[in-house]
Amino acid sequence: MTKDAVQGAAEEADQAQSKKGLKKQQKEAEKAAKKAEKQAKLAADTQSTDEDDFAKDRYGVPQMVQSQQKLDRVLVRVQKLTPEKADQLIWVRARVHTSRAKGKQCFLVLRQQQFNVQALVAVGERASKQMVKFAANINKESIVDVEAMVRKVEQKIESCTQQDVELHIERIFVISQAEPRLPLQLEDCVRPDGEGDEDGRATVNQDTRLDNRVIDLRTTTSQAIFRLQSGVCQLFRDTLTNKGFVEIQTPKIISAASEGGANVFTVSYFKTSAYLAQSPQLYKQMCICADFDKVFCVGPVFRAEDSNTHRHLTEFVGLDIELAFNYHYHEVIESITDTMVQIFKGLRDKFQTEIQTVGKQYPSEPFRFLEPTLRLEYTEGVAMLREAGVDMGDEEDLSTPNEKLLGRLVKEKYDTDFYVLDKYPLAVRPFYTMPDPNDKKYSNSYDMFMRGEEILSGAQRIHDAQLLTERAIHHNIAYFYYVTNTLVAGKIKSYIDSFRYGAPPHGGGGIGLERVCMLYLGLHNVRQVSMFPRDPKRLTP
Amino acid sequence: MTKDAVQGAAEEADQAQSKKGLKKQQKEAEKAAKKAEKQAKLAADTQSTDEDDFAKDRYGVPQMVQSQQKLDRVLVRVQKLTPEKADQLIWVRARVHTSRAKGKQCFLVLRQQQFNVQALVAVGERASKQMVKFAANINKESIVDVEAMVRKVEQKIESCTQQDVELHIERIFVISQAEPRLPLQLEDCVRPDGEGDEDGRATVNQDTRLDNRVIDLRTTTSQAIFRLQSGVCQLFRDTLTNKGFVEIQTPKIISAASEGGANVFTVSYFKTSAYLAQSPQLYKQMCICADFDKVFCVGPVFRAEDSNTHRHLTEFVGLDIELAFNYHYHEVIESITDTMVQIFKGLRDKFQTEIQTVGKQYPSEPFRFLEPTLRLEYTEGVAMLREAGVDMGDEEDLSTPNEKLLGRLVKEKYDTDFYVLDKYPLAVRPFYTMPDPNDKKYSNSYDMFMRGEEILSGAQRIHDAQLLTERAIHHNIAYFYYVTNTLVAGKIKSYIDSFRYGAPPHGGGGIGLERVCMLYLGLHNVRQVSMFPRDPKRLTP
Repeated sequence: MTKDAVQGAAEEADQAQSKKGLKKQQKEAEKAAKKAEKQAKLAADTQSTDEDDFAKDRYGVPQMVQSQQKLDRVLVRVQKLTPEKADQLIWVRARVHTSRAKGKQCFLVLRQQQFNVQALVAVGERASKQMVKFAANINKESIVDVEAMVRKVEQKIESCTQQDVELHIERIFVISQAEPRLPLQLEDCVRPDGEGDEDGRATVNQDTRLDNRVIDLRTTTSQAIFRLQSGVCQLFRDTLTNKGFVEIQTPKIISAASEGGANVFTVSYFKTSAYLAQSPQLYKQMCICADFDKVFCVGPVFRAEDSNTHRHLTEFVGLDIELAFNYHYHEVIESITDTMVQIFKGLRDKFQTEIQTVGKQYPSEPFRFLEPTLRLEYTEGVAMLREAGVDMGDEEDLSTPNEKLLGRLVKEKYDTDFYVLDKYPLAVRPFYTMPDPNDKKYSNSYDMFMRGEEILSGAQRIHDAQLLTERAIHHNIAYFYYVTNTLVAGKIKSYIDSFRYGAPPHGGGGIGLERVCMLYLGLHNVRQVSMFPRDPKRLTP
Repeated sequence: MTKDAVQGAAEEADQAQSKKGLKKQQKEAEKAAKKAEKQAKLAADTQSTDEDDFAKDRYGVPQMVQSQQKLDRVLVRVQKLTPEKADQLIWVRARVHTSRAKGKQCFLVLRQQQFNVQALVAVGERASKQMVKFAANINKESIVDVEAMVRKVEQKIESCTQQDVELHIERIFVISQAEPRLPLQLEDCVRPDGEGDEDGRATVNQDTRLDNRVIDLRTTTSQAIFRLQSGVCQLFRDTLTNKGFVEIQTPKIISAASEGGANVFTVSYFKTSAYLAQSPQLYKQMCICADFDKVFCVGPVFRAEDSNTHRHLTEFVGLDIELAFNYHYHEVIESITDTMVQIFKGLRDKFQTEIQTVGKQYPSEPFRFLEPTLRLEYTEGVAMLREAGVDMGDEEDLSTPNEKLLGRLVKEKYDTDFYVLDKYPLAVRPFYTMPDPNDKKYSNSYDMFMRGEEILSGAQRIHDAQLLTERAIHHNIAYFYYVTNTLVAGKIKSYIDSFRYGAPPHGGGGIGLERVCMLYLGLHNVRQVSMFPRDPKRLTP
């Protein structure tokens, strides 16, 4: 589906770029090509003129893999290099993690994702002096194919994940050359905070990591974080699918701001303009009105908030849930908290390695949760805060520091890192929130917290078109009005209209994927759990 | 996470709306509220003054469900109403699909998603004349709670999914009132094309359906389509997870157009501007460079193409795959085709009901596929077309009609609706496509087709920074240049940089979810399989 794009790109570039610039580029390209040719020739010459080298076919830089041939060769995964493979001659493709020449030997650590193994090339029957030198000169992070004999070792190799074997290399070929100077060192990226300062070793600041994210993501810590994140999504979906939920896909380009007009990105849309969805809120509710009964979706949500904090992103992944209930929205709370508990249990049971790997660099207390989940009412929370000396009004929203303080108080009293705060003041919630039938100051709405930070906001929604209209007008949310049973005009007309032809009572919530991962792992910055984070100051890579 | 939004919305609305408008709105709201109150009073009066009605507590319109109480009542699913439940008194919540009064009886069909059951209220011990009248007057699509005795029927009820029982209603309460006039009728929405014309009955045109999508989605056809679509996503992910793939989340707001500068939506991003990702292409490749080895993602992709065809959307869902391979990109093709085959088998085995439901309205031949998947080379395809009388050049791209024709020729010759066309001309592919090492006119790239329409475009990608730079310059793709081994400036610098520190050979492809669903089901418009489609002319609902 990308064929047309190329031509279009060419046209756009034509306009944007002067002919002079183009010529310069072509010149540079020619220059680069010539240089590459020269280097290749040099490499070839070196090898072919060295007549003394009996091992000359056993190493080198072959042609770029361009699918010239289908090799039958089996490549063994580093993870599978165990004593059972001892004394077998095998092929492995891996990165050169480190290399260290030592007399007539060269020790390498070969890495494949989170796994690594020690390897050595030693001058002997299968390797020449030149071959050892070649191996020693391979740049770190290059990708190599090695043929090697697997040998058991007497003393465990503590520095590698494969501790019981090492590889005795008999052939080594470079599949992809890394440049000699890396913009940052992997070992600096995984050093625990603080250690760098004490020992005078470097740590890498976050912007440098993010600027070079492709290398930063290669660390054991990053590999563990994003494998765990993939697990959160899977656990979320599997739990809900088992509960009978249907996955939906909602549009991200929308004509009306779903959560109101502020904090919304504008998109130019042909001859008009549109917005980026701040949540799938209106659409997942429309699916409930359309009889899907229980729905979830996983997708990007966009917030044009100029907040440069540890927990705000302008684009993040929403795990959204919406479901019809029978008589009380606590049915919804139970469904969501049970889903969260299934996620926590799944992580605890299936991702222990990842949790421990992250813990090595970022130590934290194991995540605690209760079954069933603790539910406190807002007024109880406020009372606990007041008891702790906080001065706040009944209908006042919780500030971030107060949320955190309340998290600590709850942890002390109930020993849980996860709880629900129920029945928020109506005034601090969105227009579509169902008011509490017993007290107009409050609402049938809730937030959920992990380690004292909000990860979900949810509520019973108003399922009556007339009440919804009144609340929207009260909030000045849109330009429509309700005249004798007919909605006239208005940007969220199609949303309100959804409730005019029968709608069941329903509720739901939206979970921030990155926050769940960050807080579960006890990390302190949401950028660590976003592969390519977006904030007001970062749009690349 | 939506609390701040409300205030922002209020501010925005304040600016946008005059005070006069506000007053008008308030007046209208008050008017509407008064009217509602009056109606409620009237309803209450009617009931309470009707002293003769012994059944007056057995029906009515109770207060809106606002979570006033936690009822212990079990609601039985319509799907579970089988002869095993005979002679049990049960509660059901469902929509009034149809109602028909007949003397002292009222027959209703109660619907819950794709399931429905016949019910009746008859004047007798448990129901008064007034109650029957009340039931007969409930607007279609309203949601009701009924208490009823399940009774076996002697003759199968052919018009319902629950054919062996009917419900004898003893209580009936309206949970949500539908307005009396529906903008379109469900039975008109599911009528097979053409039938409307023959019998003089209405069919509903697509724009009317989409304008009233929430009702259109309630039909058995729509329910089946989107449950099957949910299944495609699940099968896609489960298959890949079992193959060891990791799910990734890639940013949709990007600083450089991933597929070139044309067809890209622009977003205002604080003080600068950005683009909406046309694909996760660059990011999934960066994940490969970052050692994730095999990745997939499911998410929206955006194309600002002003194409108003049956198969183009401006926003659709991409099922994307990228993986490192060993020696030949056919390893990638095999991985993708196997995934597709698993999806086809899963649909065939688990979604037969949905397939047949859709087939009732839109008849089509069952989808045929081979194992292993048929792979033809581009030159073979061109030869077949030429044999069929098509005049085209070797390096010419396939036009849509030629793609369809080739699909028919392939179906005739090989009896498959799914095949791969391999080795496209280099000239018609994106800049990051690996050239064929044996013939510079061609490339290591492929498309996959279902019923003669493209559903996937993919290739071996260039994993060498220098060659990638040369190809990008050749395509005028961006404003950068390569000087003595260092990339300077340029919008896709961070992408090209990803290949400078070791990158494995890799390839992949992007699948259009909606097209897969459309073509698998033999439908003819992609809007039928997009819940809330976006095209150049449609931004709502």
